[in-house]
Amino acid sequence: MKPEMKIRFNNDYSEGAHSEIMARLNETNMIQTAGYGEDPFCDSARDAIKRQFGCQQADVHFLVGGTQANLTVIAAALRPHQAVICAETGHINVHETGAIEACGHKVIGLPHNEGTITAEQIDAYVKAHYNDETHEHITQPKLVYISQPTELGTIYSKDALTAIYQICQKHGLYLFIDGARLGYGLSSADNDLDDKTFSALSDVFTIGGTKMGALFGEAVVINHPALKQDFRYIMKQKGAMLAKGRLLGIQFLSFFEKDLYRRLGNHADELAMHLKTAMLAKGYTPYVNSPTNQQFFILPDADLLEIEKYFTYAYIERIDATHSAVRFCTSWATRPEDVKTLIKFIDALH
Amino acid sequence: MKPEMKIRFNNDYSEGAHSEIMARLNETNMIQTAGYGEDPFCDSARDAIKRQFGCQQADVHFLVGGTQANLTVIAAALRPHQAVICAETGHINVHETGAIEACGHKVIGLPHNEGTITAEQIDAYVKAHYNDETHEHITQPKLVYISQPTELGTIYSKDALTAIYQICQKHGLYLFIDGARLGYGLSSADNDLDDKTFSALSDVFTIGGTKMGALFGEAVVINHPALKQDFRYIMKQKGAMLAKGRLLGIQFLSFFEKDLYRRLGNHADELAMHLKTAMLAKGYTPYVNSPTNQQFFILPDADLLEIEKYFTYAYIERIDATHSAVRFCTSWATRPEDVKTLIKFIDALH
Amino acid sequence: MKPEMKIRFNNDYSEGAHSEIMARLNETNMIQTAGYGEDPFCDSARDAIKRQFGCQQADVHFLVGGTQANLTVIAAALRPHQAVICAETGHINVHETGAIEACGHKVIGLPHNEGTITAEQIDAYVKAHYNDETHEHITQPKLVYISQPTELGTIYSKDALTAIYQICQKHGLYLFIDGARLGYGLSSADNDLDDKTFSALSDVFTIGGTKMGALFGEAVVINHPALKQDFRYIMKQKGAMLAKGRLLGIQFLSFFEKDLYRRLGNHADELAMHLKTAMLAKGYTPYVNSPTNQQFFILPDADLLEIEKYFTYAYIERIDATHSAVRFCTSWATRPEDVKTLIKFIDALH
Amino acid sequence: MKPEMKIRFNNDYSEGAHSEIMARLNETNMIQTAGYGEDPFCDSARDAIKRQFGCQQADVHFLVGGTQANLTVIAAALRPHQAVICAETGHINVHETGAIEACGHKVIGLPHNEGTITAEQIDAYVKAHYNDETHEHITQPKLVYISQPTELGTIYSKDALTAIYQICQKHGLYLFIDGARLGYGLSSADNDLDDKTFSALSDVFTIGGTKMGALFGEAVVINHPALKQDFRYIMKQKGAMLAKGRLLGIQFLSFFEKDLYRRLGNHADELAMHLKTAMLAKGYTPYVNSPTNQQFFILPDADLLEIEKYFTYAYIERIDATHSAVRFCTSWATRPEDVKTLIKFIDALH
Repeated sequence: MKPEMKIRFNNDYSEGAHSEIMARLNETNMIQTAGYGEDPFCDSARDAIKRQFGCQQADVHFLVGGTQANLTVIAAALRPHQAVICAETGHINVHETGAIEACGHKVIGLPHNEGTITAEQIDAYVKAHYNDETHEHITQPKLVYISQPTELGTIYSKDALTAIYQICQKHGLYLFIDGARLGYGLSSADNDLDDKTFSALSDVFTIGGTKMGALFGEAVVINHPALKQDFRYIMKQKGAMLAKGRLLGIQFLSFFEKDLYRRLGNHADELAMHLKTAMLAKGYTPYVNSPTNQQFFILPDADLLEIEKYFTYAYIERIDATHSAVRFCTSWATRPEDVKTLIKFIDALH
Repeated sequence: MKPEMKIRFNNDYSEGAHSEIMARLNETNMIQTAGYGEDPFCDSARDAIKRQFGCQQADVHFLVGGTQANLTVIAAALRPHQAVICAETGHINVHETGAIEACGHKVIGLPHNEGTITAEQIDAYVKAHYNDETHEHITQPKLVYISQPTELGTIYSKDALTAIYQICQKHGLYLFIDGARLGYGLSSADNDLDDKTFSALSDVFTIGGTKMGALFGEAVVINHPALKQDFRYIMKQKGAMLAKGRLLGIQFLSFFEKDLYRRLGNHADELAMHLKTAMLAKGYTPYVNSPTNQQFFILPDADLLEIEKYFTYAYIERIDATHSAVRFCTSWATRPEDVKTLIKFIDALH
Repeated sequence: MKPEMKIRFNNDYSEGAHSEIMARLNETNMIQTAGYGEDPFCDSARDAIKRQFGCQQADVHFLVGGTQANLTVIAAALRPHQAVICAETGHINVHETGAIEACGHKVIGLPHNEGTITAEQIDAYVKAHYNDETHEHITQPKLVYISQPTELGTIYSKDALTAIYQICQKHGLYLFIDGARLGYGLSSADNDLDDKTFSALSDVFTIGGTKMGALFGEAVVINHPALKQDFRYIMKQKGAMLAKGRLLGIQFLSFFEKDLYRRLGNHADELAMHLKTAMLAKGYTPYVNSPTNQQFFILPDADLLEIEKYFTYAYIERIDATHSAVRFCTSWATRPEDVKTLIKFIDALH
Repeated sequence: MKPEMKIRFNNDYSEGAHSEIMARLNETNMIQTAGYGEDPFCDSARDAIKRQFGCQQADVHFLVGGTQANLTVIAAALRPHQAVICAETGHINVHETGAIEACGHKVIGLPHNEGTITAEQIDAYVKAHYNDETHEHITQPKLVYISQPTELGTIYSKDALTAIYQICQKHGLYLFIDGARLGYGLSSADNDLDDKTFSALSDVFTIGGTKMGALFGEAVVINHPALKQDFRYIMKQKGAMLAKGRLLGIQFLSFFEKDLYRRLGNHADELAMHLKTAMLAKGYTPYVNSPTNQQFFILPDADLLEIEKYFTYAYIERIDATHSAVRFCTSWATRPEDVKTLIKFIDALH
């Protein structure tokens, strides 16, 4: 191995798109269609998604990126005085440069457990809000944002998600599930949520394409009728309506016509489990116990210095004077031989 | 005492205005002046404030209310991606219904010590921001908001404020001090900041009128040149430019021409100290050790049930099954005999 | 007359408040009440307004100023992609420093006729919007804003207002009437709208206090149920919830308990008609034919140079090389002798 | 010809990407790179653009779409009270669903001449603003937005653009040129602006990719130092920072490495001139005299009914009872034989 040719494990968007997707983009390239998502490819992709997730009544829209999808959904859902509840670690709270606040809304970060929050926390927060005599002086909680899998790679079980959805319904809150890495969650061996149940336990969710093997793209699936109205106006306003919307339709059709989305999820998760096993065997402490493609471990800095000569990873935080938490990602594009190389390299560290 | 005539200690804005202020409003009532703060009364009030706080180069503006002043200052100071750092308990973070977020900016609440934050906390936060490789994905800290006195009645010492101001200057942050109750802070026996030093240790601060004996009104004093430009445009946009601006000028002139502001601060703080002494003597536990007009104590619920028959207080939070934290406020308008009545009443509780 | 003691006709907010209002503020000054508009004075004022305007089902809120009231109502009413239709001359379009845009909404200015727009114009605009294939790329018209009287002093007749309200209902638009000078409109000899009919032909309207003899204050009357929810949250967020809300209640109670509002409207309108008659007699060309307290005329610059030595007026625009359009206002505070003085002065100009 | 296989002339984004671009996307597909525009392809594309436009000191960023680019640039440039001046027909004024207002800024539409505005208009507007005594009550003009070519296909000459840039500099306004179809403008036979001069006469401009043969993408070129700071923060906040930023770099590198951008511009403009000549020969009245790829003509409705059986066009507006204005676009993808077919078809109309 030569250091100048590092193998990338720092994230899951280091390559272009899966070959099946590229093939279809090439085939359809010179076909003329209408713009702005009103083409036959988008229509077919919408149908495929609604079949897959069992949500025939849903509206499905295609947007380019995750921050864009999050801010558009939330801007469409909330009135000016309303706020979003999420985990402190929620992507909208920490890694979107205040995109939600720029739309006028406070993001309320609750303490998290490995990236997740609970129905009990939500219930307590909302009750406390309305019990406060001065609640009109405080932003009104109206939407709960969770990620599946979470930003730390963990997943909500069927029981946990059911409880959250029920508490949202009880309090009149919308439940928005960010599925930027949804495929890696649904494909996880630990996942007990089938696609249809998952959809039925949400008001709106996204299906991430970028990190799952598309060039780019997130599908927004809107189940709750109150969230459907005029969504395309708001997409356009936020710069989220792609002129050549067909590109999104073509890619999502590729994902859901022949189960590619699930196959790619399985691919990445299996490789991640190999890596996890090796890390545990090496004696590294898990930072989070993740069943998906993102693996967070605590490593000696000395080992990291060696590893980073040949591999990239994402630095998370310092743990103590000689240890750091880091993240290794597999993805749809990860080559099994590269994982083997990494595992061998780690094993060989003294 | 009849229960239907409760004596109010729940806040410091239960009455109209101090008699000297009302007298001057009456005297000047039918004089014709220009509108929007461009009248001779406002000019004189600006001069008086600049003399009092030794800030001859400052711009001084008069606004109606505290939330209005906070959101106008912050909207004027920040670019879209920039955020405010404050204590978790900061008024802008918890009691302005997301006014700052509605202007597009994230409010970053740091853990507090009796309502205060430290220069070290600010320094650590800003350093961590710029050390993060992905800092462009995170809102950029640009302004520090503190309150003097804090929302819990405590005050920053000269040393603490100096350290905060220096760290702000080091990192290119603006320091904004919310003085909604400034008079009660500057008048406190524990205060070691004279008015001129206080002003010199800030980029912009407010001088609260509403809670200090005016019908309404907050003066915004802008020391930092970069914050001065076009401030009146933004006032107008935010609905914060009073047509009959003279009313603000007249009131602030009354405050600062004959030291009324300080006299009223002394009045309230002295009464608060009597009450504090009595509460401590009674054996009540302080919730916060406040040297100003707001006194936070933990009382048995049984006592509160008696007290609230004749007096109002503000409920803060439940402490345990039989105790609650509450707030009693004195103010410019509090009658010494009412404090005596309350003290006697508490003494008499079995 | 000495030039340094100019008599002000440039606007209708040059003085403090009417003596009846000041008297009541003085009387009630030291009474203790709850804050934020939840006091008995506000309750009584709400009742008086609902009686006067025959809108028992309405919600009534009190805010400090006109820009504040306009932006709060519109922010509460619209979703992000929705826009306001108004006359090009509408206050929100030209004199609020983009307050509505700062809340995220486009203001669509239609051509005006002496400050008014018509039902036909609104109908045509909305139809054109929905007929456009790309209407999702264009802000969606959702609220119509008109002023009664208009910014040019003219008034909508019962027929005109009925037509506008009906077209709004047909298209699902809210009708918001800005009554910053409502009293001068309702009191006009040309007005054929009684108070109850006026209210019944709107979804939300304001009753201006500042220009009608209050120190400050606008009442927002919300008739449409969809506009009522959580309005106080949004007031607080916009800095529009006065701590000593009682001050607004006391003033509006004064206006509507003994018909003061109408009396003051009559006073100003009658004086304005004297002035108008004199101007016409002098041969000055009306810029607008206004039946209310604002009189817009075209005068020779030479005459204006003389007039401005002793009187103030508002400059509107240059008409030709030797003539300008200007505005003279009377108000609740205008002294009949001052109007006589001005009329004599004009008569005497060679 | 079969009606179900209409040939599309309604816009210039009906296909995917030019074959040279697709080829390069395919070749580079599985190469691993850093994300968010920090990869070698983006670096090379930046260099190529800076060479082409002679702006070595510029910052170059790549965004996905035009509305996104416009709103990000303007949000980054303006303070809350500042407004954009543009032609009434400006894309930001009429076809972005209020994207600029959603960022808080008023868009001031000036009357246009075939889509253009003049330095004189800008000068007059700005002078009038500052001459108005109440200018603080009016949004402050700070940025001029023009499009090259305009939304009506016309172009600014070197003289016209020089005059606009000079007046902007005189008044301290930023000049932002929207180049969504820049290649069709720069390639026009009527254009007298070379690329370097064009760039030198702007503070910031965009280079459109979507309509010029990319799958998507707009380059933002920032010349003015004040507009550079922290632009990436604001991109991220607005959802405009593509995870796989390399896709933008690869496409723009394809455009500017071997002059593809100019070749495609020439292609479309030449075909448009053939069509224009034929339309004029047929006796159709030009709606606008456009020298670029968008051709606006007034046609009899009877002819349009025939044409639309086999071709698509964009409907603009009704002219009279029997005529309508419509737009035909050529593009990088237009096949010469399709233009010939359309011309023959029109010639054959009785």
